[in-house]
Amino acid sequence: MQSDKLTFDRSYPPIERPFTGFEPAALQAFLDGEFVEVRNQVKSIITRPEFRHFEGNDRHEYRRQVLVWLRTIADAGLGRLFLPPELGGEADLRKVMAVFETLSFHDGSLLIKLGVQFGLFGGSIQQLGTEYHHRKYLPGAAACQLLGGFAMTEIGHGSNVQALETIAVYDSEHRDFIINSPSYTSGKTFIGNAAVDGQLMVVFAQLHIGAANHGVHAFVVPIRDENGQPLPGVTIEDNGLKLGLNGVDNGRIWFQNTRVPKTELLNRFAEVTDDGRYRSEIKSNNSRFFTMIGTLVNGRITMALAANSMAKSSVTIAIRYAARRRQFGGGIQETLVLDYPATQRRLMPLLANVYAFDFAVKRLVRIREQSPSSARTIEGLAAGIKAFSTWTAMHTIQVCRESCGGDGYMFVNRFAALKADADIFTTFEGDNTVLMQLVAKNLLGELKDQLKEMNPARIARFFVDQRLKALRKRFMGLTAASASLLSPEQQLAYFRFRESTLLLRAGGQFRRLTRQKGMDSYSAFTRLQPELLELAEAYAERQVVESFLEAVAGMPEQTLQRPLRKLSDLFALYHLEKHKGWFLENGFMPGRRAIAITSHVTRLCQEVRQDAVALVDAFGIPDQCLGAPIALG
Amino acid sequence: MQSDKLTFDRSYPPIERPFTGFEPAALQAFLDGEFVEVRNQVKSIITRPEFRHFEGNDRHEYRRQVLVWLRTIADAGLGRLFLPPELGGEADLRKVMAVFETLSFHDGSLLIKLGVQFGLFGGSIQQLGTEYHHRKYLPGAAACQLLGGFAMTEIGHGSNVQALETIAVYDSEHRDFIINSPSYTSGKTFIGNAAVDGQLMVVFAQLHIGAANHGVHAFVVPIRDENGQPLPGVTIEDNGLKLGLNGVDNGRIWFQNTRVPKTELLNRFAEVTDDGRYRSEIKSNNSRFFTMIGTLVNGRITMALAANSMAKSSVTIAIRYAARRRQFGGGIQETLVLDYPATQRRLMPLLANVYAFDFAVKRLVRIREQSPSSARTIEGLAAGIKAFSTWTAMHTIQVCRESCGGDGYMFVNRFAALKADADIFTTFEGDNTVLMQLVAKNLLGELKDQLKEMNPARIARFFVDQRLKALRKRFMGLTAASASLLSPEQQLAYFRFRESTLLLRAGGQFRRLTRQKGMDSYSAFTRLQPELLELAEAYAERQVVESFLEAVAGMPEQTLQRPLRKLSDLFALYHLEKHKGWFLENGFMPGRRAIAITSHVTRLCQEVRQDAVALVDAFGIPDQCLGAPIALG
Repeated sequence: MQSDKLTFDRSYPPIERPFTGFEPAALQAFLDGEFVEVRNQVKSIITRPEFRHFEGNDRHEYRRQVLVWLRTIADAGLGRLFLPPELGGEADLRKVMAVFETLSFHDGSLLIKLGVQFGLFGGSIQQLGTEYHHRKYLPGAAACQLLGGFAMTEIGHGSNVQALETIAVYDSEHRDFIINSPSYTSGKTFIGNAAVDGQLMVVFAQLHIGAANHGVHAFVVPIRDENGQPLPGVTIEDNGLKLGLNGVDNGRIWFQNTRVPKTELLNRFAEVTDDGRYRSEIKSNNSRFFTMIGTLVNGRITMALAANSMAKSSVTIAIRYAARRRQFGGGIQETLVLDYPATQRRLMPLLANVYAFDFAVKRLVRIREQSPSSARTIEGLAAGIKAFSTWTAMHTIQVCRESCGGDGYMFVNRFAALKADADIFTTFEGDNTVLMQLVAKNLLGELKDQLKEMNPARIARFFVDQRLKALRKRFMGLTAASASLLSPEQQLAYFRFRESTLLLRAGGQFRRLTRQKGMDSYSAFTRLQPELLELAEAYAERQVVESFLEAVAGMPEQTLQRPLRKLSDLFALYHLEKHKGWFLENGFMPGRRAIAITSHVTRLCQEVRQDAVALVDAFGIPDQCLGAPIALG
Repeated sequence: MQSDKLTFDRSYPPIERPFTGFEPAALQAFLDGEFVEVRNQVKSIITRPEFRHFEGNDRHEYRRQVLVWLRTIADAGLGRLFLPPELGGEADLRKVMAVFETLSFHDGSLLIKLGVQFGLFGGSIQQLGTEYHHRKYLPGAAACQLLGGFAMTEIGHGSNVQALETIAVYDSEHRDFIINSPSYTSGKTFIGNAAVDGQLMVVFAQLHIGAANHGVHAFVVPIRDENGQPLPGVTIEDNGLKLGLNGVDNGRIWFQNTRVPKTELLNRFAEVTDDGRYRSEIKSNNSRFFTMIGTLVNGRITMALAANSMAKSSVTIAIRYAARRRQFGGGIQETLVLDYPATQRRLMPLLANVYAFDFAVKRLVRIREQSPSSARTIEGLAAGIKAFSTWTAMHTIQVCRESCGGDGYMFVNRFAALKADADIFTTFEGDNTVLMQLVAKNLLGELKDQLKEMNPARIARFFVDQRLKALRKRFMGLTAASASLLSPEQQLAYFRFRESTLLLRAGGQFRRLTRQKGMDSYSAFTRLQPELLELAEAYAERQVVESFLEAVAGMPEQTLQRPLRKLSDLFALYHLEKHKGWFLENGFMPGRRAIAITSHVTRLCQEVRQDAVALVDAFGIPDQCLGAPIALG
């Protein structure tokens, strides 16, 4: 009897894919851009049978699987992309990012393990080290013959890494550094590749020479011998089970009198002479620290990209499911879930978000490549987009899970892994809240630089008030009654105005707190945290809106421009809708305009719904990577 | 060398607990209320060593563990609380809810397994069956000698359960029902206790007698023999790995010519005579269906409660961690994370939320007990609070996880389980979006009943406009310039006005669509989904604000009233802040009032911070249940 049920047709109803005026493949070609070849190479690897999603429940086995995957990718020569040109690499950040993005369709743990190995370990040696280190370590790192990690975070210091406790004392007699973990809380923690696989670590420690502390520096430190046993003086613990990313072997490390030769200081920004004199082009410890940290900005870009890639998978699953699932309704068939206004209002803004961040991250990478000089701008931009993108991705994945109901809760349908793996992206490579404060501080710093030219101080203060007035006047003119909310210039005007106003206000408040009330900067920044977070959000939103509008304006084909234009309208107005309270309470927007924004969003959601399946098909996520049976076919 | 690190002091810094004017124990006594004894009984069980959180990774083992836990609880006699008085139960819903709430501190899977066994299986027999069924099944169910489940959801029908495909045909010759699953999609799915343990199921199926379909009815159907093997004609599959709740054995079931005697129809609302005549007091299939479904409202109350209980655990962990963790800052010590305005703005509203839902659910249970007659009101209230509470809990758990940074990502610190287990609460016992539409439809139904008395139709329509005007006039008077945002009456006025206005507007729109545009109700409801969801949210918020204000007003002690009054202010103004765009764009609020709301929220967050640790200590969550090392000590 029981086998009879096997005769049931178990196939899902077809995903409804009416032609809506453009071919997904054409849009995919546009999104893939010039790196279609390397994207396809990565896809050809991660769709091999042995790359099927891990389905076991033993994390040790999962870790071994991920290591095998990592080696396969290195064997295919993809690690070489991360090398500097003199060692055979291509030094093409956009290509590297194309690899990361494509890998993000597959497995979060592999992505992070690879990011640790090539990006953090290899990347920090490349960015903080010099030729000696490059030649010694990078080829092995790229080939995964030398596995390493990035040992910065400590138990006691996750965000405030300038206050790390690990100490490296220079011993001029032996010309080496003695590395010590003076306390429990000085133990390195959450270090990828530490618990099992890593042989070497780039260790961040306070550099002491005699009585002087020169601040945090990076050292290459072996932690395991050739048999995988911890070296004498090195204590390693497994961080244990995590919420997600359990294919990555995170661990804790303490050092006791671990000695490394003087050559193992990554000395691009600072050097110690044999006899123990400290030399650096950058005189202030503080500036040097931020210069070093600043070079690690690529990790944040990668997080933004990976989070968005995982959001793409989620949106693809949710929209395809809604385009085949029917529930309620009185016709011959029940109503397609995607046809409900509630579904459209729920999912279409998420689709707009993933497109927006796609363009924003691509633009960020271009800016990073083209003008490596303006470090502060890049740093702020990367921080803002990383925070905005990862928070948005978490929201996206969750809403997509819910919109797939009980099916979305099944492990096989992928949300379990996507949610769990992406979660920590809001924390690592810089906690989002901390990053957003960095963004705001950078913006205030730039404002201060502008105002400096306006001395004396009273003129500067007057200038802030005047600028606020002028800004408002111009904005109110631009957005006068007859202006269309669907004009890109109008949309941008709202986001720019909000950002500039918040900046000038925060600048004014900071001035009052520090000059009139005598607060130190730290206290003033702390007091202003809510305002600074709002400012940073406004900045990030403006950047993403700008990127989206630029991308649409630059699209070659009219047939593709139409659906993307609708998406960018939706993105802009959906995020503007969140802030209508602010515009209204300040008298920056009439009530009827605010009401119109909401009507536009609802209507745009209906319109985008027509293109929705084609728009997710254009991501080109391979079936095996997407995995979810509810979204295939 | 390696063991040297063991000499490090691994203890966390103390959680800072300055006395802030009240004893957490006093507040806990107030929260625990009259059911402190049963709460303590449950705590004494779930803090036994064998109830330590499951830490394995094998879900089969986890399921076995949960079954052992369940039996331990039944052996302690707690299952008896679910029985009707004539079978030795206490029929005290508040006591039952006290048990559920306390259990929610322990393990999500146990909670759900217990809810399936006592609440859904036992509860549906109690609510839909009659004395024969009660005597036959309930004692065994309460003692866990008879394990069962609630087989309603099918692969093809999760939300629209009125359209279930399973069929029960009455065979008058044999006086039994023949149950069949006619298709793949008619298979029951996500059924707790189905994959392994359940012996019986309450199966929902379309009752066919001859050519007539009398709609969905419930039948008690055995699915396994005494050896745990599926009975002939019953096909069972394991639903497999889920995002969470992996200690519950969810499964799929198909029936092929499964016969059950006529007695096994749960016949409280309908009966079939031996010769096949159908009899029911409720004439319409539709009304009968909703009456049957309506009796299952306790499950939704339980979900609201459990979600909030899990949010309490999260908030406790996050606040205690922030009260011991220091990061950044220039003094002798770094700054306590809880002292940052950003942390306060992030966590304090979540603390207000969990208190608010505590009172809201307690009030809901009281209303349910006191007036079982107004079924529609209870149903709407339970649906609204379930949706609002579970969505809020998911948000709360996520923000708490993030605020604990990398430590929050460690499995041992509990967010992994809390997030994963609570996630599905937004879906089961009614998808939140569907429930919110039910809420709105009920409200529109009530409005229609009122308007009916105002016939003819044109008068009714006029009346809506007049009522909107009168409403606005009274509201604007109430909230005139000098009124304080900290007055409970004021706060309530905002929420009531918003709800009433949205209701009257939606009612007017519905009328226009159905009367002037000739739409059928289903299409009109569908078109108005965004408006209806907004209305339902407004209703749920008003209910919760009201509950909080009532609870505070009824507090005996001044020392406790002070901190809770601040929390209720924060709750009301934090949620009002979300809607200031709506009040402003409609001209219902001056801009300066909206700005004042935000200032109040920021200040209240600072003030509540002082009481925060005491407020979470008052939840009285046992250390072993809370689990998270970062939050103990």
